[in-house]
Amino acid sequence: MIKHNSYFDNNVQSLGFQGESQPVSVGVMAVGEYRFGTEAAERMVVTSGALTVLLPGSENWQTFAAGEEFHVPANSSFDLKIEQTSSYACFYG
Amino acid sequence: MIKHNSYFDNNVQSLGFQGESQPVSVGVMAVGEYRFGTEAAERMVVTSGALTVLLPGSENWQTFAAGEEFHVPANSSFDLKIEQTSSYACFYG
Repeated sequence: MIKHNSYFDNNVQSLGFQGESQPVSVGVMAVGEYRFGTEAAERMVVTSGALTVLLPGSENWQTFAAGEEFHVPANSSFDLKIEQTSSYACFYG
Repeated sequence: MIKHNSYFDNNVQSLGFQGESQPVSVGVMAVGEYRFGTEAAERMVVTSGALTVLLPGSENWQTFAAGEEFHVPANSSFDLKIEQTSSYACFYG
């Protein structure tokens, strides 16, 4: 089953599903600034555009372009700045 | 703007948007067999799972895993076999 999710007035949308070994979602973020909380740990792979992220415990914003990835710990939150509509794949746990 | 699309009784869903240089969609395909037609040429990047594809003019099915990609010509059609729910990013034109 594929579940469509919408956040931040439809400016972030994702499609969630059960991958072979873990839950996965693919999504799109429009230009804006967002804060997300995690339950499971997340591996975020940028698939187009770029995500600029402030990871928990970090004082520096880092930009990840298409093909790059970053990890977010479980039970934390992270901030994102999106300067062009961008897409990602997120792997949980 | 992010546009949610559903095909094949919701077994294929995508989120379409205008990327920096071209239209893009990210999507998920549940287990099944599908035929898609193209208008613009498409570059399909597998982001999780695997897509098994019969490209136009080919007699051989080819399987592309996460991180791999294939190209489909404009104004053609291609067949897909999906053996595990999988995701992709598609770049048009």
